[in-house]
Amino acid sequence: MELFNRYCFIGCEKSFEESDVIIFGAPFDGTCSFRPGSRFAPNKIRIDSYGLETYSPYLDRDLLDRKIHDAGDIDLIFGNKYAVLDTIKEYAQHIMNHQKKPLMIGGEHLVTLPVVSALFEKHPDLVLLHFDAHTDLRGDYMGEELSHATVIKQIWDFLGDGRIYQFGIRSGLKEEFYWAEKEGHTFMNKYGYDRLDEAVQKIKDKPVYVTIDLDILDPSIFPGTGTPEPGGITFKDMLDILQKLDGLNIVGADVVELAPDYDPTGVSTAVASKILRELMLIL
Amino acid sequence: MELFNRYCFIGCEKSFEESDVIIFGAPFDGTCSFRPGSRFAPNKIRIDSYGLETYSPYLDRDLLDRKIHDAGDIDLIFGNKYAVLDTIKEYAQHIMNHQKKPLMIGGEHLVTLPVVSALFEKHPDLVLLHFDAHTDLRGDYMGEELSHATVIKQIWDFLGDGRIYQFGIRSGLKEEFYWAEKEGHTFMNKYGYDRLDEAVQKIKDKPVYVTIDLDILDPSIFPGTGTPEPGGITFKDMLDILQKLDGLNIVGADVVELAPDYDPTGVSTAVASKILRELMLIL
Amino acid sequence: MELFNRYCFIGCEKSFEESDVIIFGAPFDGTCSFRPGSRFAPNKIRIDSYGLETYSPYLDRDLLDRKIHDAGDIDLIFGNKYAVLDTIKEYAQHIMNHQKKPLMIGGEHLVTLPVVSALFEKHPDLVLLHFDAHTDLRGDYMGEELSHATVIKQIWDFLGDGRIYQFGIRSGLKEEFYWAEKEGHTFMNKYGYDRLDEAVQKIKDKPVYVTIDLDILDPSIFPGTGTPEPGGITFKDMLDILQKLDGLNIVGADVVELAPDYDPTGVSTAVASKILRELMLIL
Amino acid sequence: MELFNRYCFIGCEKSFEESDVIIFGAPFDGTCSFRPGSRFAPNKIRIDSYGLETYSPYLDRDLLDRKIHDAGDIDLIFGNKYAVLDTIKEYAQHIMNHQKKPLMIGGEHLVTLPVVSALFEKHPDLVLLHFDAHTDLRGDYMGEELSHATVIKQIWDFLGDGRIYQFGIRSGLKEEFYWAEKEGHTFMNKYGYDRLDEAVQKIKDKPVYVTIDLDILDPSIFPGTGTPEPGGITFKDMLDILQKLDGLNIVGADVVELAPDYDPTGVSTAVASKILRELMLIL
Amino acid sequence: MELFNRYCFIGCEKSFEESDVIIFGAPFDGTCSFRPGSRFAPNKIRIDSYGLETYSPYLDRDLLDRKIHDAGDIDLIFGNKYAVLDTIKEYAQHIMNHQKKPLMIGGEHLVTLPVVSALFEKHPDLVLLHFDAHTDLRGDYMGEELSHATVIKQIWDFLGDGRIYQFGIRSGLKEEFYWAEKEGHTFMNKYGYDRLDEAVQKIKDKPVYVTIDLDILDPSIFPGTGTPEPGGITFKDMLDILQKLDGLNIVGADVVELAPDYDPTGVSTAVASKILRELMLIL
Amino acid sequence: MELFNRYCFIGCEKSFEESDVIIFGAPFDGTCSFRPGSRFAPNKIRIDSYGLETYSPYLDRDLLDRKIHDAGDIDLIFGNKYAVLDTIKEYAQHIMNHQKKPLMIGGEHLVTLPVVSALFEKHPDLVLLHFDAHTDLRGDYMGEELSHATVIKQIWDFLGDGRIYQFGIRSGLKEEFYWAEKEGHTFMNKYGYDRLDEAVQKIKDKPVYVTIDLDILDPSIFPGTGTPEPGGITFKDMLDILQKLDGLNIVGADVVELAPDYDPTGVSTAVASKILRELMLIL
Ligand SMILES: [Mn+2]
Ligand SMILES: [Mn+2]
Ligand SMILES: [Mn+2]
Ligand SMILES: [Mn+2]
Ligand SMILES: [Mn+2]
Ligand SMILES: [Mn+2]
Ligand SMILES: [Mn+2]
Ligand SMILES: [Mn+2]
Ligand SMILES: [Mn+2]
Ligand SMILES: [Mn+2]
Ligand SMILES: [Mn+2]
Ligand SMILES: [Mn+2]
Repeated sequence: MELFNRYCFIGCEKSFEESDVIIFGAPFDGTCSFRPGSRFAPNKIRIDSYGLETYSPYLDRDLLDRKIHDAGDIDLIFGNKYAVLDTIKEYAQHIMNHQKKPLMIGGEHLVTLPVVSALFEKHPDLVLLHFDAHTDLRGDYMGEELSHATVIKQIWDFLGDGRIYQFGIRSGLKEEFYWAEKEGHTFMNKYGYDRLDEAVQKIKDKPVYVTIDLDILDPSIFPGTGTPEPGGITFKDMLDILQKLDGLNIVGADVVELAPDYDPTGVSTAVASKILRELMLIL
Repeated sequence: MELFNRYCFIGCEKSFEESDVIIFGAPFDGTCSFRPGSRFAPNKIRIDSYGLETYSPYLDRDLLDRKIHDAGDIDLIFGNKYAVLDTIKEYAQHIMNHQKKPLMIGGEHLVTLPVVSALFEKHPDLVLLHFDAHTDLRGDYMGEELSHATVIKQIWDFLGDGRIYQFGIRSGLKEEFYWAEKEGHTFMNKYGYDRLDEAVQKIKDKPVYVTIDLDILDPSIFPGTGTPEPGGITFKDMLDILQKLDGLNIVGADVVELAPDYDPTGVSTAVASKILRELMLIL
Repeated sequence: MELFNRYCFIGCEKSFEESDVIIFGAPFDGTCSFRPGSRFAPNKIRIDSYGLETYSPYLDRDLLDRKIHDAGDIDLIFGNKYAVLDTIKEYAQHIMNHQKKPLMIGGEHLVTLPVVSALFEKHPDLVLLHFDAHTDLRGDYMGEELSHATVIKQIWDFLGDGRIYQFGIRSGLKEEFYWAEKEGHTFMNKYGYDRLDEAVQKIKDKPVYVTIDLDILDPSIFPGTGTPEPGGITFKDMLDILQKLDGLNIVGADVVELAPDYDPTGVSTAVASKILRELMLIL
Repeated sequence: MELFNRYCFIGCEKSFEESDVIIFGAPFDGTCSFRPGSRFAPNKIRIDSYGLETYSPYLDRDLLDRKIHDAGDIDLIFGNKYAVLDTIKEYAQHIMNHQKKPLMIGGEHLVTLPVVSALFEKHPDLVLLHFDAHTDLRGDYMGEELSHATVIKQIWDFLGDGRIYQFGIRSGLKEEFYWAEKEGHTFMNKYGYDRLDEAVQKIKDKPVYVTIDLDILDPSIFPGTGTPEPGGITFKDMLDILQKLDGLNIVGADVVELAPDYDPTGVSTAVASKILRELMLIL
Repeated sequence: MELFNRYCFIGCEKSFEESDVIIFGAPFDGTCSFRPGSRFAPNKIRIDSYGLETYSPYLDRDLLDRKIHDAGDIDLIFGNKYAVLDTIKEYAQHIMNHQKKPLMIGGEHLVTLPVVSALFEKHPDLVLLHFDAHTDLRGDYMGEELSHATVIKQIWDFLGDGRIYQFGIRSGLKEEFYWAEKEGHTFMNKYGYDRLDEAVQKIKDKPVYVTIDLDILDPSIFPGTGTPEPGGITFKDMLDILQKLDGLNIVGADVVELAPDYDPTGVSTAVASKILRELMLIL
Repeated sequence: MELFNRYCFIGCEKSFEESDVIIFGAPFDGTCSFRPGSRFAPNKIRIDSYGLETYSPYLDRDLLDRKIHDAGDIDLIFGNKYAVLDTIKEYAQHIMNHQKKPLMIGGEHLVTLPVVSALFEKHPDLVLLHFDAHTDLRGDYMGEELSHATVIKQIWDFLGDGRIYQFGIRSGLKEEFYWAEKEGHTFMNKYGYDRLDEAVQKIKDKPVYVTIDLDILDPSIFPGTGTPEPGGITFKDMLDILQKLDGLNIVGADVVELAPDYDPTGVSTAVASKILRELMLIL
């Protein structure tokens, strides 16, 4: 007699071996400066994914027809971010060594760094699609170089110019915007994604990593995050973005910065879950 | 000396006898599979309706000029859905026997079934306008035929093809969409209501029942519901819908699936209350 | 490379086969008349059990030294309580057929009925220790015989007089108290547990089932329940009770009526988890 | 066919005429200096009273055997406390003119003033039993003489020395304690109620008004109040107090300072409701 | 060694003397009839402003380049609105006497009256830009002339016809709309701000006071307010409005009706903070 | 004209220079493994301290008669605990260099380490009074030596045997209890404080540091903490403890582990504030 465990994302019950995509959680929020709590995101997303259907009418595809394994969470050490980043990188390499794609659920945005770093070793022409309300381009934050406010700058350090595409950005230091826009180190699409088609055109032959800081969404639909920034895109915009990405050579992706306890309605978690479903269906 | 009791919807203090429209609550949520709590909706709506005005600038009409009686709630037995449905049907018949229109506040969506069933006995050419995020067209849900996931299919069983118009739908099984769209058993307008004018045109001479599952609204404005489904319509869309319905021969209506405790801000209840006010003003 | 999944109660990671005690969830709350939500208890308890240690200084015992398997949740059908009760009974029988003890996490109190019923078939001299704020002795509730307000009366129907011991009771109909106290159908210890030693003495040679309706606790320490009843026992009282039960021949047990969403502080879940830990350590 | 309205306190459905006790709400919190919201108490208490039974096992009495009418709420004008106090006094007089006893649900503590004032006109030898965490004995509060921090001093202005008995007090200005204790203007029992028997003895032949500021309770069991003051009495203490008052000539009473929205668990409202039930059963 | 105090709005740490703009809080909500709590707004805004950057990419301006002093809150007496209004007026005059501009954080909308009154004494040709969901044009509210429902009518009493421009209005009595629209006492732009350009054109040579009742925003993005009114403008609309006001001769402004405790997500406070930042950058 | 800023603890408005006791916040929670958020404690305590009086009837003393300065918060770098500990130690030394006593508001318990370390340099015979639910005696936590689970062990590394007195402890590893109790490295009073008189007797001639991890309190009165552990002491117990400490040579103290956002009622913050007030009055 078999019991029912809602302990993986809905429809992702295939084994590691038979799957093409491996979902895993990175429940770390140790450098968050304002409101912590993204550590609670992966488990909450799994449980609430059962409020979704596995079928997407938008894409007319069904998770049940996919080969996806939900591997659970990495066990992370609070108070030692270096060890955290090493462990995440090691697990991303483990996935790639088995010819599978990593799909990570954060945690804060800093967890993107080790996965992109691991993918870059395999794909030296990797490009990064970065969706966020924030620039994340600081050189340091209060003297620290590793933080969710510096993560994209850290990635630029090895990817270099012309490889990072940023969308939805509406908050940062004057210096960060200057560095990105005036000095041209990144492709910066402020506020929305009106230049996404142009970007897709440029990168359509490259391996792509997609990092979605969910605070790109307007806090009306996504209040459950550490630094809510009014003036963001709608959920329908996000569906539109994901449909535009369909067909790209996406070699890895993540969804970060859900802090579910800040949203007692549960809507932020439902939003993150539905974005994850759509993302899985275009991988 | 008279005291003040905020125990009916604002402006609905006329007696049963002198009224044309009878509001009543059906506080049942016994088949809800994800998050229960719509049982608390009717009382919360009444209390918070006092944050509204009785006057609608949209319609330039005032509840005080209408003849509406708020009858309170039906006393329902949790754990016996058959008895619940019978009791609701009996009360709906009682209202119709007095030549008045029923306006029900749910409760979960299953409570629509007995009211439509009662109206169908009187109006064999009844058509159903169904606003919802969900198809509600399952044949059964885990073996049960009576559930808020099957309610519209249950109604189709007696209304038949060509009588059900669905708007805002964005979630369901692949099979449900196939049955509705490909097999054509219902008029299915996915995501929005761009084909509402067409529908209104078709049904303008028929008796119409309007069922509004409030989860058709985007969870940004309506988080307080059992199964929040991102990507819905706005409140202004809903006002627009109601104005398009003005002039139809509406013989009954309901507003269901508010679960107020999931929204500590109270906004979901305010939204439900204002939709009810506008709905009363077009009945 | 192994990942970490917090999907069973802390320290209960042994297999079904090697274990003596089988924990399982029965996430049903379909007859709850006031505030539903105990369906969410089992998963919340598992996740939050990681705020506990496996070691109990009270008992100087450690879960890691026990053989306990957390089997997950039974998949239940909302809207059909008969099917729910059958499924639970079947799973309890499955456990007993393997010579193991069932330890159930509710759900509402009605889920106790099928487990006691299954155990009674094997242990005809079974006695019931019932900890609760409420009598749960109604003959019917609004015409329904199966409800969390009638569950102990339903059990009495087959156990009979002299087999049910009730503690902490402080709410019920006048008729229920009369039936229990004046007519003497149960051993009724109102408000507290000052006669527990006497009861333990009487039943020390019998197979015992322990059902803990957590609302026996004062709502100051356990607000997260459907019907909070002020004037209950303290958490230290509950520890004291469990120590008094140590040494009895307990053949099964349950912990019911946690409705975690009503307590945003998470304390109610922490309380339930710690009681479960202590309970496991005396099984 | 009759519907069910949970718009009066459970078991208080008799008419004004046939009743001995009249419950009414005074939903005013306009002078609250810290956290407002007691205006929402009366309605919340009524709705949640349905989680109680009408029978008290403590007193072995049942509300159904009493003659109590719940009259609803007085309609009050925010921003004009003078008008508020006048309206309350007028309604209290209306009750007394019909030879009935007033039982008021606050609102903030200032609402006690007009009711005691009305009763004093009829009972010149009235004594006041005052249960509270706070002295409420300020001469003025920021220049204002009428406030929930001055209410007992305002009553002393007409009752005078030797007529006010205070219990549970644990917060106030040094000057207030000096005035009460050293100058002896009131009978001051700090922290608890160990001198209640003595007080009951002294006043057993007098008409008594009982005012219960619910913040006398420890915030562990009663967090939902404007100024939570740790170190209070338990709920069982409160039951004990009410039993000691049984037999006194109580001519009126009130229960004030529940601010239900500050307690999302609903326990504070359950506590207030149960105290009201017990209070009704000794009137 | 210096410590860090987050006790003024981010970037507003200049002294009173060296500043051009003086921010102050008026934490009064004493006439609020539905849900109080705007008294908590100023402090919450200051603390949460540290989730913002000082730089606005929309305006390409930085608070650090401005001369703004955050003076803290006025100490107000609950229960005496006359004294409250006098104290606010006195402080506004103090600011103007030093040739600085007042920027007030409410509190409820009534606090606008004394500031406009003070400015009118200096600028007899003052015009008022009023952003709100509500007309605020009642002659009295339950007999009281001073209330947040009458504040604009009170201001009209001295400003007179043709000086008040209202935007976003979607709730009021039929009589209020008639008075404003049909009798033409104000420039009334219902629902949105499509006539703002026209208004800006008319007033571009006048001294302007801007009062923003934040409930003009849709409750999806601003639920934390006393009377949430669905159907409002978006946050991007508000950014657009502020950019249209850039260049006007704004002599004072306020932002009122945030009740932060009603929004546990903190988004409403983030919205108010960001609007304040943009407003400061156009003063 | 002076405005009112509630930005220091009530009654602690004296200058650094004239004060004997310096309060400061250390808003760090970077090693918290379960629920973070103690970073928000210092500011919340200051704001809510205005719900208290400055006078303590328990001690018959008034904060207004004391010389206490609230210095604000140390500005800490999330993601670098070494820098955090250095900065705190430096500020503690700064206070001691001016012959004043530090009174720190955490943050998590790790912040105690640098303050005790600084005091130990001046007072080599320092003893530590440790109030906590948890042993905090781990050698390492997941490989890390610096964490709130290891802090007392870290302090023992320099204080050594016989210098640490622990009270209220009810959770830890079997090994930690063995190390403390069986090996005798600390004075361990499990569950309560029945041996506090004995301890006070032993240390009455020594310089004493008092660290209060507020989770020693039962979660019924203090739910707002990272790891709530049922079975703790009451608030009255804590008052009793503080009175027993009165007269000791306390050279520094702290109050840690309030995570205010987990308790929406605000009671946990009120409790922390009142404990701080009483603690100040015995320093
Ligand atoms: Mn980011
Ligand atoms: Mn971001
Ligand atoms: Mn539906
Ligand atoms: Mn639906
Ligand atoms: Mn029970
Ligand atoms: Mn119970
Ligand atoms: Mn009082
Ligand atoms: Mn009080
Ligand atoms: Mn307004
Ligand atoms: Mn408004
Ligand atoms: Mn600790
Ligand atoms: Mn601790």
